[in-house]
Amino acid sequence: MDTLTEKEKMLRGELYFPSNKVLQRDRAAAKAACQQFNQAPETQRKSAMKALQNLFAESPNAWIEPTFYCDYGYNIRMGRNFYANHNVVILDAAPVTFGDDVMLAPGVLISTASHPLDAKRRNKGLETARPITIGNSVWIGMGAKILDGVTIGNNAVIAAGAVVNKDVAADTVVAGVPAVAIRKIDNEPSTPANVE
Amino acid sequence: MDTLTEKEKMLRGELYFPSNKVLQRDRAAAKAACQQFNQAPETQRKSAMKALQNLFAESPNAWIEPTFYCDYGYNIRMGRNFYANHNVVILDAAPVTFGDDVMLAPGVLISTASHPLDAKRRNKGLETARPITIGNSVWIGMGAKILDGVTIGNNAVIAAGAVVNKDVAADTVVAGVPAVAIRKIDNEPSTPANVE
Amino acid sequence: MDTLTEKEKMLRGELYFPSNKVLQRDRAAAKAACQQFNQAPETQRKSAMKALQNLFAESPNAWIEPTFYCDYGYNIRMGRNFYANHNVVILDAAPVTFGDDVMLAPGVLISTASHPLDAKRRNKGLETARPITIGNSVWIGMGAKILDGVTIGNNAVIAAGAVVNKDVAADTVVAGVPAVAIRKIDNEPSTPANVE
Repeated sequence: MDTLTEKEKMLRGELYFPSNKVLQRDRAAAKAACQQFNQAPETQRKSAMKALQNLFAESPNAWIEPTFYCDYGYNIRMGRNFYANHNVVILDAAPVTFGDDVMLAPGVLISTASHPLDAKRRNKGLETARPITIGNSVWIGMGAKILDGVTIGNNAVIAAGAVVNKDVAADTVVAGVPAVAIRKIDNEPSTPANVE
Repeated sequence: MDTLTEKEKMLRGELYFPSNKVLQRDRAAAKAACQQFNQAPETQRKSAMKALQNLFAESPNAWIEPTFYCDYGYNIRMGRNFYANHNVVILDAAPVTFGDDVMLAPGVLISTASHPLDAKRRNKGLETARPITIGNSVWIGMGAKILDGVTIGNNAVIAAGAVVNKDVAADTVVAGVPAVAIRKIDNEPSTPANVE
Repeated sequence: MDTLTEKEKMLRGELYFPSNKVLQRDRAAAKAACQQFNQAPETQRKSAMKALQNLFAESPNAWIEPTFYCDYGYNIRMGRNFYANHNVVILDAAPVTFGDDVMLAPGVLISTASHPLDAKRRNKGLETARPITIGNSVWIGMGAKILDGVTIGNNAVIAAGAVVNKDVAADTVVAGVPAVAIRKIDNEPSTPANVE
Protein backbone atom coordinates (compact mmCIF):
# COMPACT_ATOMS: atom_id res chain seq x y z
CA MET A 1 0.00 0.00 0.00
CA ASP A 2 1.38 3.31 -1.06
CA THR A 3 1.03 5.67 1.88
CA LEU A 4 3.53 8.33 0.81
CA THR A 5 2.31 11.65 -0.55
CA GLU A 6 3.75 12.89 -3.83
CA LYS A 7 5.71 15.50 -1.87
CA GLU A 8 7.19 12.79 0.35
CA LYS A 9 8.16 10.75 -2.71
CA MET A 10 9.72 13.84 -4.29
CA LEU A 11 11.83 14.51 -1.21
CA ARG A 12 12.91 10.83 -0.97
CA GLY A 13 14.16 10.80 -4.55
CA GLU A 14 11.42 8.42 -5.74
CA LEU A 15 9.38 8.77 -8.92
CA TYR A 16 6.55 11.22 -8.24
CA PHE A 17 3.95 13.32 -10.04
CA PRO A 18 4.77 17.05 -9.97
CA SER A 19 1.21 17.62 -11.24
CA ASN A 20 0.03 16.78 -7.71
CA LYS A 21 -2.22 19.54 -6.32
CA VAL A 22 -0.23 20.27 -3.19
CA LEU A 23 2.97 20.57 -5.20
CA GLN A 24 1.27 22.75 -7.83
CA ARG A 25 0.04 25.05 -5.08
CA ASP A 26 3.51 25.24 -3.54
CA ARG A 27 5.10 26.05 -6.90
CA ALA A 28 2.48 28.70 -7.63
CA ALA A 29 3.28 30.39 -4.31
CA ALA A 30 7.03 30.31 -5.02
CA LYS A 31 6.59 31.65 -8.53
CA ALA A 32 4.35 34.43 -7.27
CA ALA A 33 7.10 35.49 -4.85
CA CYS A 34 9.73 35.34 -7.61
CA GLN A 35 7.53 37.35 -9.97
CA GLN A 36 7.03 40.08 -7.35
CA PHE A 37 10.77 40.18 -6.79
CA ASN A 38 11.50 40.32 -10.51
CA GLN A 39 9.05 43.14 -11.13
CA ALA A 40 10.00 45.33 -8.18
CA PRO A 41 11.41 48.70 -9.25
CA GLU A 42 15.11 48.98 -8.42
CA THR A 43 14.39 51.65 -5.80
CA GLN A 44 12.64 48.90 -3.83
CA ARG A 45 15.20 46.17 -4.46
CA LYS A 46 16.23 45.86 -0.79
CA SER A 47 12.71 45.33 0.51
CA ALA A 48 11.94 43.05 -2.45
CA MET A 49 15.01 41.00 -1.52
CA LYS A 50 13.82 40.73 2.10
CA ALA A 51 10.41 39.54 0.94
CA LEU A 52 11.98 36.94 -1.34
CA GLN A 53 14.09 35.61 1.55
CA ASN A 54 10.89 34.47 3.28
CA LEU A 55 10.59 31.89 0.51
CA PHE A 56 13.85 30.10 1.33
CA ALA A 57 14.61 27.67 4.13
CA GLU A 58 17.71 29.73 4.98
CA SER A 59 19.17 32.85 3.41
CA PRO A 60 20.77 34.99 6.17
CA ASN A 61 22.04 37.83 3.97
CA ALA A 62 21.46 36.67 0.39
CA TRP A 63 21.59 39.10 -2.51
CA ILE A 64 20.02 38.18 -5.85
CA GLU A 65 19.75 40.18 -9.07
CA PRO A 66 16.58 39.84 -11.16
CA THR A 67 15.37 37.79 -12.87
CA PHE A 68 15.34 34.83 -10.46
CA TYR A 69 13.08 31.79 -10.58
CA CYS A 70 12.77 28.66 -8.46
CA ASP A 71 10.17 25.89 -7.98
CA TYR A 72 9.50 25.75 -4.24
CA GLY A 73 12.05 27.85 -2.40
CA TYR A 74 11.60 25.88 0.83
CA ASN A 75 14.15 23.35 -0.39
CA ILE A 76 16.86 26.01 -0.83
CA ARG A 77 19.35 26.66 1.99
CA MET A 78 21.86 29.44 1.42
CA GLY A 79 24.87 30.07 3.63
CA ARG A 80 26.16 33.52 4.52
CA ASN A 81 27.04 36.00 1.77
CA PHE A 82 25.15 34.19 -0.99
CA TYR A 83 25.17 36.12 -4.26
CA ALA A 84 23.32 35.29 -7.49
CA ASN A 85 23.68 37.48 -10.57
CA HIS A 86 20.97 38.02 -13.24
CA ASN A 87 18.81 35.28 -14.77
CA VAL A 88 19.58 32.41 -12.39
CA VAL A 89 17.08 29.52 -12.22
CA ILE A 90 17.05 26.91 -9.41
CA LEU A 91 14.66 23.97 -9.75
CA ASP A 92 14.55 22.79 -6.14
CA ALA A 93 12.33 19.70 -6.11
CA ALA A 94 15.02 18.19 -3.84
CA PRO A 95 17.16 20.14 -1.36
CA VAL A 96 19.69 22.61 -2.81
CA THR A 97 22.21 23.47 -0.12
CA PHE A 98 24.80 26.23 -0.51
CA GLY A 99 27.70 26.81 1.90
CA ASP A 100 28.94 30.28 2.84
CA ASP A 101 30.40 32.73 0.31
CA VAL A 102 28.90 31.17 -2.81
CA MET A 103 28.75 33.30 -5.98
CA LEU A 104 26.62 32.48 -9.03
CA ALA A 105 27.35 34.37 -12.25
CA PRO A 106 24.60 35.46 -14.69
CA GLY A 107 22.56 32.74 -16.35
CA VAL A 108 23.50 29.87 -14.01
CA LEU A 109 20.94 27.03 -14.19
CA ILE A 110 20.60 24.50 -11.34
CA SER A 111 18.17 21.58 -11.46
CA THR A 112 17.53 18.83 -8.93
CA ALA A 113 14.75 17.52 -11.17
CA SER A 114 15.10 14.91 -13.85
CA HIS A 115 12.82 12.73 -15.96
CA PRO A 116 12.79 9.07 -17.00
CA LEU A 117 14.77 8.49 -20.22
CA ASP A 118 12.05 6.19 -21.54
CA ALA A 119 9.25 8.18 -23.17
CA LYS A 120 6.48 6.02 -21.76
CA ARG A 121 7.05 6.92 -18.14
CA ARG A 122 8.17 10.45 -18.95
CA ASN A 123 4.90 11.11 -20.77
CA LYS A 124 2.93 10.04 -17.71
CA GLY A 125 4.39 13.11 -16.03
CA LEU A 126 6.70 11.19 -13.70
CA GLU A 127 9.82 12.89 -12.41
CA THR A 128 12.63 12.26 -9.93
CA ALA A 129 14.70 14.69 -7.88
CA ARG A 130 18.12 14.37 -6.28
CA PRO A 131 19.72 16.86 -3.88
CA ILE A 132 22.47 19.26 -4.95
CA THR A 133 25.08 20.29 -2.39
CA ILE A 134 27.48 23.17 -3.01
CA GLY A 135 30.28 23.79 -0.52
CA ASN A 136 31.74 26.97 0.96
CA SER A 137 33.44 29.57 -1.23
CA VAL A 138 32.29 28.08 -4.53
CA TRP A 139 32.25 30.33 -7.60
CA ILE A 140 30.01 29.21 -10.48
CA GLY A 141 30.72 30.94 -13.80
CA MET A 142 28.42 32.41 -16.43
CA GLY A 143 25.78 30.12 -17.87
CA ALA A 144 27.07 27.01 -16.09
CA LYS A 145 24.54 24.20 -15.56
CA ILE A 146 24.50 22.09 -12.37
CA LEU A 147 22.59 18.81 -12.69
CA ASP A 148 20.65 16.69 -10.17
CA GLY A 149 22.60 14.75 -7.56
CA VAL A 150 25.82 16.75 -7.85
CA THR A 151 28.01 17.70 -4.87
CA ILE A 152 30.60 20.48 -5.33
CA GLY A 153 33.47 20.69 -2.83
CA ASN A 154 34.69 23.77 -0.95
CA ASN A 155 36.54 26.47 -2.90
CA ALA A 156 35.77 24.89 -6.28
CA VAL A 157 35.47 27.10 -9.36
CA ILE A 158 33.08 26.13 -12.16
CA ALA A 159 34.11 27.69 -15.48
CA ALA A 160 31.68 29.61 -17.66
CA GLY A 161 29.47 27.33 -19.76
CA ALA A 162 30.40 24.16 -17.88
CA VAL A 163 27.80 21.38 -17.57
CA VAL A 164 28.40 19.70 -14.21
CA ASN A 165 26.91 16.18 -14.12
CA LYS A 166 29.42 14.60 -11.69
CA ASP A 167 30.75 15.57 -8.27
CA VAL A 168 33.47 18.22 -8.16
CA ALA A 169 36.38 17.86 -5.68
CA ALA A 170 37.31 20.70 -3.34
CA ASP A 171 39.92 23.25 -4.53
CA THR A 172 39.38 22.30 -8.18
CA VAL A 173 38.55 24.20 -11.37
CA VAL A 174 36.26 22.29 -13.73
CA ALA A 175 35.32 23.30 -17.28
CA GLY A 176 33.67 21.95 -20.41
CA VAL A 177 30.60 20.03 -21.56
CA PRO A 178 30.54 17.76 -19.61
CA ALA A 179 32.76 19.43 -17.02
CA VAL A 180 36.16 17.87 -16.21
CA ALA A 181 38.86 19.01 -13.78
CA ILE A 182 41.39 21.28 -15.49
CA ARG A 183 43.35 22.62 -12.52
CA LYS A 184 43.92 22.38 -8.77
CA ILE A 185 43.74 25.58 -6.74
CA ASP A 186 46.28 26.27 -4.00
CA ASN A 187 44.28 27.70 -1.13
CA GLU A 188 47.13 27.50 1.40
CA PRO A 189 47.50 30.80 3.29
CA SER A 190 51.28 30.91 2.84
CA THR A 191 51.14 30.99 -0.96
CA PRO A 192 50.87 34.27 -2.86
CA ALA A 193 47.37 34.19 -4.30
CA ASN A 194 46.83 33.77 -8.02
CA VAL A 195 44.20 35.78 -9.82
CA GLU A 196 42.18 35.01 -12.87
CA MET B 1 11.02 40.26 -61.69
CA ASP B 2 10.84 39.81 -57.97
CA THR B 3 7.21 39.39 -57.03
CA LEU B 4 7.64 37.73 -53.65
CA THR B 5 7.08 39.71 -50.48
CA GLU B 6 9.76 39.61 -47.79
CA LYS B 7 7.45 37.43 -45.71
CA GLU B 8 7.07 34.98 -48.59
CA LYS B 9 10.86 34.86 -49.05
CA MET B 10 11.29 34.29 -45.31
CA LEU B 11 8.87 31.36 -45.34
CA ARG B 12 10.54 29.86 -48.47
CA GLY B 13 13.97 29.89 -46.86
CA GLU B 14 15.32 32.57 -49.21
CA LEU B 15 17.40 35.59 -48.21
CA TYR B 16 15.03 38.28 -46.95
CA PHE B 17 15.01 41.56 -45.04
CA PRO B 18 13.56 41.19 -41.53
CA SER B 19 13.52 45.01 -41.40
CA ASN B 20 10.51 44.83 -43.76
CA LYS B 21 7.54 46.80 -42.36
CA VAL B 22 5.04 43.95 -42.38
CA LEU B 23 7.46 41.67 -40.57
CA GLN B 24 8.37 44.40 -38.08
CA ARG B 25 4.69 44.89 -37.33
CA ASP B 26 4.17 41.14 -36.89
CA ARG B 27 7.14 40.88 -34.52
CA ALA B 28 5.96 43.88 -32.52
CA ALA B 29 2.56 42.21 -32.06
CA ALA B 30 4.16 38.95 -30.94
CA LYS B 31 6.52 40.67 -28.54
CA ALA B 32 3.66 42.68 -27.07
CA ALA B 33 1.82 39.42 -26.36
CA CYS B 34 4.96 37.87 -24.82
CA GLN B 35 5.57 40.95 -22.68
CA GLN B 36 2.01 40.84 -21.35
CA PHE B 37 2.42 37.18 -20.52
CA ASN B 38 5.78 37.74 -18.84
CA GLN B 39 4.47 40.58 -16.69
CA ALA B 40 1.23 38.96 -15.60
CA PRO B 41 1.04 38.38 -11.85
CA GLU B 42 1.16 34.69 -10.97
CA THR B 43 -2.44 34.78 -9.74
CA GLN B 44 -3.43 35.45 -13.38
CA ARG B 45 -1.04 32.95 -14.96
CA LYS B 46 -3.81 30.72 -16.34
CA SER B 47 -5.60 33.52 -18.17
CA ALA B 48 -2.26 34.95 -19.30
CA MET B 49 -1.40 31.53 -20.73
CA LYS B 50 -4.73 31.40 -22.60
CA ALA B 51 -4.07 34.84 -24.07
CA LEU B 52 -0.59 33.83 -25.17
CA GLN B 53 -1.98 30.73 -26.91
CA ASN B 54 -3.81 33.02 -29.37
CA LEU B 55 -0.38 33.93 -30.72
CA PHE B 56 0.54 30.40 -31.82
CA ALA B 57 -0.66 28.46 -34.86
CA GLU B 58 -1.47 25.52 -32.58
CA SER B 59 -1.08 25.03 -28.84
CA PRO B 60 -3.98 22.88 -27.57
CA ASN B 61 -2.97 22.74 -23.89
CA ALA B 62 0.47 24.35 -23.73
CA TRP B 63 1.96 25.49 -20.46
CA ILE B 64 4.85 27.97 -20.41
CA GLU B 65 6.70 29.53 -17.48
CA PRO B 66 7.84 33.15 -17.79
CA THR B 67 9.89 34.64 -19.29
CA PHE B 68 9.06 33.50 -22.85
CA TYR B 69 9.89 35.32 -26.07
CA CYS B 70 9.34 34.53 -29.74
CA ASP B 71 9.45 36.49 -33.03
CA TYR B 72 6.10 35.84 -34.70
CA GLY B 73 4.25 33.06 -32.88
CA TYR B 74 2.18 32.19 -35.95
CA ASN B 75 5.01 29.91 -37.14
CA ILE B 76 4.93 27.84 -33.94
CA ARG B 77 2.88 24.65 -33.80
CA MET B 78 2.80 22.80 -30.49
CA GLY B 79 1.39 19.32 -30.03
CA ARG B 80 -0.54 18.20 -26.95
CA ASN B 81 1.01 18.60 -23.48
CA PHE B 82 3.69 21.08 -24.54
CA TYR B 83 5.68 22.38 -21.59
CA ALA B 84 8.36 25.09 -21.58
CA ASN B 85 10.17 26.05 -18.38
CA HIS B 86 11.56 29.55 -17.57
CA ASN B 87 13.49 31.76 -19.99
CA VAL B 88 12.88 29.91 -23.25
CA VAL B 89 13.33 31.87 -26.51
CA ILE B 90 12.01 30.65 -29.89
CA LEU B 91 12.96 32.66 -33.00
CA ASP B 92 10.32 31.41 -35.42
CA ALA B 93 11.04 33.10 -38.74
CA ALA B 94 10.43 29.67 -40.28
CA PRO B 95 7.99 27.05 -38.92
CA VAL B 96 8.84 25.46 -35.57
CA THR B 97 6.79 22.29 -35.18
CA PHE B 98 6.60 20.32 -31.93
CA GLY B 99 5.02 16.89 -31.61
CA ASP B 100 3.04 15.79 -28.55
CA ASP B 101 4.55 15.55 -25.06
CA VAL B 102 7.53 17.83 -25.65
CA MET B 103 9.31 19.29 -22.61
CA LEU B 104 11.74 22.21 -22.72
CA ALA B 105 13.91 22.82 -19.64
CA PRO B 106 14.85 26.34 -18.44
CA GLY B 107 16.93 28.50 -20.76
CA VAL B 108 16.38 26.51 -23.96
CA LEU B 109 17.10 28.63 -27.07
CA ILE B 110 15.62 27.69 -30.47
CA SER B 111 16.36 29.67 -33.63
CA THR B 112 15.20 29.10 -37.20
CA ALA B 113 16.98 32.31 -38.22
CA SER B 114 20.52 32.57 -39.48
CA HIS B 115 22.69 35.18 -41.19
CA PRO B 116 25.17 35.14 -44.09
CA LEU B 117 28.71 34.31 -42.93
CA ASP B 118 30.12 37.04 -45.16
CA ALA B 119 29.97 40.40 -43.45
CA LYS B 120 28.96 42.29 -46.58
CA ARG B 121 25.58 40.66 -46.98
CA ARG B 122 25.06 40.26 -43.25
CA ASN B 123 25.50 44.00 -42.77
CA LYS B 124 22.80 44.70 -45.35
CA GLY B 125 20.41 43.11 -42.88
CA LEU B 126 19.79 39.96 -44.90
CA GLU B 127 18.76 36.80 -43.10
CA THR B 128 17.61 33.26 -43.90
CA ALA B 129 15.32 30.92 -42.00
CA ARG B 130 14.97 27.14 -42.03
CA PRO B 131 12.24 25.13 -40.30
CA ILE B 132 12.85 23.19 -37.08
CA THR B 133 10.86 20.01 -36.47
CA ILE B 134 10.77 18.31 -33.09
CA GLY B 135 9.06 14.92 -32.78
CA ASN B 136 6.80 13.43 -30.14
CA SER B 137 8.02 12.88 -26.57
CA VAL B 138 11.21 14.89 -26.96
CA TRP B 139 12.89 16.22 -23.81
CA ILE B 140 15.28 19.15 -24.28
CA GLY B 141 17.59 19.81 -21.32
CA MET B 142 18.65 23.02 -19.58
CA GLY B 143 20.20 25.70 -21.75
CA ALA B 144 20.32 23.53 -24.88
CA LYS B 145 20.42 25.40 -28.21
CA ILE B 146 18.56 24.11 -31.30
CA LEU B 147 19.76 25.63 -34.59
CA ASP B 148 18.00 26.35 -37.88
CA GLY B 149 17.08 23.43 -40.11
CA VAL B 150 17.30 20.75 -37.43
CA THR B 151 14.88 17.81 -37.16
CA ILE B 152 14.74 15.86 -33.87
CA GLY B 153 13.22 12.36 -33.92
CA ASN B 154 10.59 10.95 -31.58
CA ASN B 155 11.60 10.18 -27.96
CA ALA B 156 15.01 11.86 -28.32
CA VAL B 157 16.63 13.43 -25.26
CA ILE B 158 18.85 16.50 -25.68
CA ALA B 159 21.33 16.82 -22.79
CA ALA B 160 21.76 20.06 -20.85
CA GLY B 161 23.99 22.56 -22.64
CA ALA B 162 23.96 20.69 -25.97
CA VAL B 163 24.22 22.70 -29.20
CA VAL B 164 22.18 20.83 -31.81
CA ASN B 165 23.26 21.76 -35.35
CA LYS B 166 22.47 18.43 -37.06
CA ASP B 167 19.44 16.15 -37.14
CA VAL B 168 18.92 13.85 -34.15
CA ALA B 169 17.66 10.29 -34.67
CA ALA B 170 14.66 8.94 -32.78
CA ASP B 171 15.27 7.19 -29.42
CA THR B 172 18.70 8.82 -29.04
CA VAL B 173 20.42 10.89 -26.35
CA VAL B 174 22.69 13.61 -27.75
CA ALA B 175 25.08 15.80 -25.74
CA GLY B 176 27.94 18.23 -26.20
CA VAL B 177 28.99 21.26 -28.25
CA PRO B 178 28.25 20.41 -31.00
CA ALA B 179 25.87 17.65 -29.94
CA VAL B 180 26.71 14.03 -30.80
CA ALA B 181 24.81 10.81 -30.05
CA ILE B 182 25.97 9.29 -26.74
CA ARG B 183 23.33 6.62 -26.16
CA LYS B 184 20.35 4.81 -27.63
CA ILE B 185 17.15 4.64 -25.57
CA ASP B 186 15.17 1.44 -25.37
CA ASN B 187 11.55 2.48 -25.65
CA GLU B 188 10.19 -1.05 -26.08
CA PRO B 189 7.24 -1.66 -23.77
CA SER B 190 8.57 -5.06 -22.61
CA THR B 191 11.77 -3.64 -21.14
CA PRO B 192 11.94 -2.39 -17.55
CA ALA B 193 12.30 1.37 -17.91
CA ASN B 194 15.55 3.06 -17.00
CA VAL B 195 15.56 6.34 -15.18
CA GLU B 196 18.04 9.19 -15.26
CA MET C 1 50.01 55.36 -0.04
CA ASP C 2 46.93 54.23 -1.86
CA THR C 3 45.33 57.28 -3.42
CA LEU C 4 43.22 55.52 -6.06
CA THR C 5 39.49 55.22 -5.59
CA GLU C 6 37.90 51.80 -6.03
CA LYS C 7 36.43 53.00 -9.32
CA GLU C 8 39.89 54.04 -10.55
CA LYS C 9 41.31 50.65 -9.55
CA MET C 10 38.44 48.93 -11.34
CA LEU C 11 39.11 50.84 -14.54
CA ARG C 12 42.88 50.15 -14.32
CA GLY C 13 42.35 46.42 -14.05
CA GLU C 14 43.58 46.26 -10.44
CA LEU C 15 41.95 44.34 -7.60
CA TYR C 16 39.09 46.44 -6.24
CA PHE C 17 36.02 46.20 -4.03
CA PRO C 18 32.77 46.33 -6.00
CA SER C 19 31.01 46.77 -2.65
CA ASN C 20 32.35 50.35 -2.66
CA LYS C 21 29.53 52.88 -2.15
CA VAL C 22 30.13 54.90 -5.31
CA LEU C 23 30.17 51.76 -7.42
CA GLN C 24 27.08 50.40 -5.68
CA ARG C 25 25.27 53.64 -6.43
CA ASP C 26 26.35 53.55 -10.07
CA ARG C 27 25.19 49.95 -10.45
CA ALA C 28 21.86 50.74 -8.81
CA ALA C 29 21.31 53.56 -11.31
CA ALA C 30 22.16 51.31 -14.25
CA LYS C 31 19.94 48.49 -13.02
CA ALA C 32 17.07 50.91 -12.49
CA ALA C 33 17.39 52.01 -16.12
CA CYS C 34 17.53 48.39 -17.30
CA GLN C 35 14.53 47.46 -15.19
CA GLN C 36 12.47 50.34 -16.65
CA PHE C 37 13.45 49.24 -20.14
CA ASN C 38 12.62 45.60 -19.44
CA GLN C 39 9.20 46.44 -18.02
CA ALA C 40 8.13 48.91 -20.67
CA PRO C 41 5.08 47.75 -22.64
CA GLU C 42 5.96 46.94 -26.24
CA THR C 43 3.92 49.89 -27.49
CA GLN C 44 6.52 52.12 -25.79
CA ARG C 45 9.59 50.13 -26.85
CA LYS C 46 11.02 52.94 -29.01
CA SER C 47 10.93 55.55 -26.26
CA ALA C 48 12.15 52.97 -23.73
CA MET C 49 15.09 52.24 -26.06
CA LYS C 50 15.90 55.96 -26.28
CA ALA C 51 15.85 56.25 -22.50
CA LEU C 52 18.15 53.24 -22.14
CA GLN C 53 20.63 54.77 -24.60
CA ASN C 54 21.30 57.56 -22.08
CA LEU C 55 22.95 54.92 -19.93
CA PHE C 56 25.66 54.02 -22.46
CA ALA C 57 28.83 55.93 -23.36
CA GLU C 58 27.91 55.59 -27.04
CA SER C 59 24.97 53.91 -28.76
CA PRO C 60 24.05 55.94 -31.88
CA ASN C 61 21.19 53.74 -33.13
CA ALA C 62 21.25 50.67 -30.90
CA TRP C 63 18.31 48.29 -30.74
CA ILE C 64 17.94 45.87 -27.84
CA GLU C 65 15.21 43.34 -27.07
CA PRO C 66 14.21 42.79 -23.43
CA THR C 67 15.40 41.55 -21.05
CA PHE C 68 18.75 43.38 -20.94
CA TYR C 69 20.98 43.89 -17.91
CA CYS C 70 24.35 45.57 -17.39
CA ASP C 71 26.38 46.78 -14.39
CA TYR C 72 27.25 50.41 -15.17
CA GLY C 73 26.39 51.20 -18.77
CA TYR C 74 28.90 54.05 -18.93
CA ASN C 75 31.63 51.56 -19.82
CA ILE C 76 29.73 50.33 -22.89
CA ARG C 77 30.45 51.84 -26.31
CA MET C 78 28.36 50.58 -29.21
CA GLY C 79 29.09 51.33 -32.85
CA ARG C 80 26.41 51.96 -35.45
CA ASN C 81 23.64 49.41 -36.01
CA PHE C 82 24.18 47.55 -32.74
CA TYR C 83 21.58 44.85 -32.19
CA ALA C 84 21.09 42.66 -29.11
CA ASN C 85 18.39 40.00 -29.00
CA HIS C 86 16.53 38.82 -25.84
CA ASN C 87 18.16 38.07 -22.49
CA VAL C 88 21.62 39.54 -23.08
CA VAL C 89 23.73 40.44 -20.00
CA ILE C 90 26.84 42.66 -20.16
CA LEU C 91 28.90 43.05 -16.97
CA ASP C 92 30.86 46.19 -17.83
CA ALA C 93 33.18 46.82 -14.89
CA ALA C 94 35.84 47.52 -17.55
CA PRO C 95 35.17 49.05 -21.00
CA VAL C 96 33.16 46.94 -23.46
CA THR C 97 33.66 48.37 -26.95
CA PHE C 98 31.65 47.22 -29.96
CA GLY C 99 32.44 48.20 -33.56
CA ASP C 100 29.76 48.90 -36.15
CA ASP C 101 27.23 46.29 -37.28
CA VAL C 102 27.52 43.97 -34.30
CA MET C 103 24.73 41.45 -33.70
CA LEU C 104 24.18 39.54 -30.44
CA ALA C 105 21.83 36.55 -30.52
CA PRO C 106 19.51 35.67 -27.59
CA GLY C 107 21.12 34.76 -24.29
CA VAL C 108 24.60 36.11 -25.01
CA LEU C 109 26.57 36.72 -21.77
CA ILE C 110 29.53 39.14 -21.70
CA SER C 111 31.61 39.74 -18.58
CA THR C 112 34.65 41.96 -18.04
CA ALA C 113 34.61 41.01 -14.36
CA SER C 114 36.49 38.15 -12.78
CA HIS C 115 37.41 36.99 -9.28
CA PRO C 116 40.57 35.64 -7.63
CA LEU C 117 40.84 31.86 -7.94
CA ASP C 118 41.96 31.59 -4.32
CA ALA C 119 38.99 31.55 -1.99
CA LYS C 120 40.62 33.78 0.62
CA ARG C 121 40.80 36.87 -1.52
CA ARG C 122 37.60 36.06 -3.39
CA ASN C 123 35.69 35.92 -0.11
CA LYS C 124 36.93 39.38 0.82
CA GLY C 125 34.88 40.62 -2.10
CA LEU C 126 37.83 41.49 -4.32
CA GLU C 127 37.35 41.50 -8.08
CA THR C 128 39.28 42.42 -11.23
CA ALA C 129 38.04 43.65 -14.59
CA ARG C 130 39.60 43.56 -18.05
CA PRO C 131 38.27 45.31 -21.17
CA ILE C 132 36.48 43.45 -23.96
CA THR C 133 36.81 44.73 -27.51
CA ILE C 134 34.60 43.49 -30.31
CA GLY C 135 35.34 44.59 -33.89
CA ASN C 136 33.11 45.64 -36.75
CA SER C 137 30.57 43.25 -38.27
CA VAL C 138 30.87 40.61 -35.55
CA TRP C 139 28.00 38.14 -35.13
CA ILE C 140 27.77 36.40 -31.74
CA GLY C 141 25.52 33.34 -31.71
CA MET C 142 22.91 32.13 -29.21
CA GLY C 143 24.02 31.71 -25.63
CA ALA C 144 27.70 32.39 -26.37
CA LYS C 145 29.80 33.63 -23.43
CA ILE C 146 32.55 36.26 -23.88
CA LEU C 147 35.05 36.42 -21.00
CA ASP C 148 37.15 39.25 -19.56
CA GLY C 149 40.09 40.53 -21.57
CA VAL C 150 38.98 39.12 -24.92
CA THR C 151 39.38 40.95 -28.26
CA ILE C 152 37.35 39.75 -31.24
CA GLY C 153 38.50 40.78 -34.74
CA ASN C 154 36.40 42.29 -37.52
CA ASN C 155 33.87 40.05 -39.30
CA ALA C 156 34.33 37.18 -36.83
CA VAL C 157 31.42 34.82 -36.16
CA ILE C 158 31.04 33.23 -32.73
CA ALA C 159 29.03 29.99 -32.91
CA ALA C 160 26.07 29.30 -30.64
CA GLY C 161 27.11 28.11 -27.19
CA ALA C 162 30.79 29.03 -27.63
CA VAL C 163 32.79 30.10 -24.56
CA VAL C 164 35.34 32.67 -25.76
CA ASN C 165 38.28 32.97 -23.33
CA LYS C 166 40.98 33.90 -25.87
CA ASP C 167 41.25 36.49 -28.63
CA VAL C 168 39.51 35.71 -31.92
CA ALA C 169 41.18 36.65 -35.23
CA ALA C 170 39.35 38.67 -37.86
CA ASP C 171 37.35 36.77 -40.52
CA THR C 172 37.20 33.62 -38.38
CA VAL C 173 34.44 31.35 -37.11
CA VAL C 174 35.06 30.01 -33.60
CA ALA C 175 33.01 27.35 -31.82
CA GLY C 176 33.08 25.11 -28.77
CA VAL C 177 33.80 25.17 -25.03
CA PRO C 178 36.37 26.68 -24.94
CA ALA C 179 36.03 28.23 -28.39
CA VAL C 180 38.55 27.32 -31.12
CA ALA C 181 38.80 28.47 -34.74
CA ILE C 182 36.89 26.11 -37.05
CA ARG C 183 36.86 28.08 -40.30
CA LYS C 184 38.14 31.17 -42.11
CA ILE C 185 35.61 33.44 -43.78
CA ASP C 186 36.29 34.87 -47.23
CA ASN C 187 35.15 38.46 -47.06
CA GLU C 188 36.71 39.48 -50.39
CA PRO C 189 34.23 41.46 -52.51
CA SER C 190 34.99 39.45 -55.68
CA THR C 191 33.94 36.13 -54.18
CA PRO C 192 30.36 34.90 -54.35
CA ALA C 193 29.17 35.09 -50.77
CA ASN C 194 28.54 31.91 -48.82
CA VAL C 195 25.54 31.61 -46.58
CA GLU C 196 25.05 29.64 -43.41
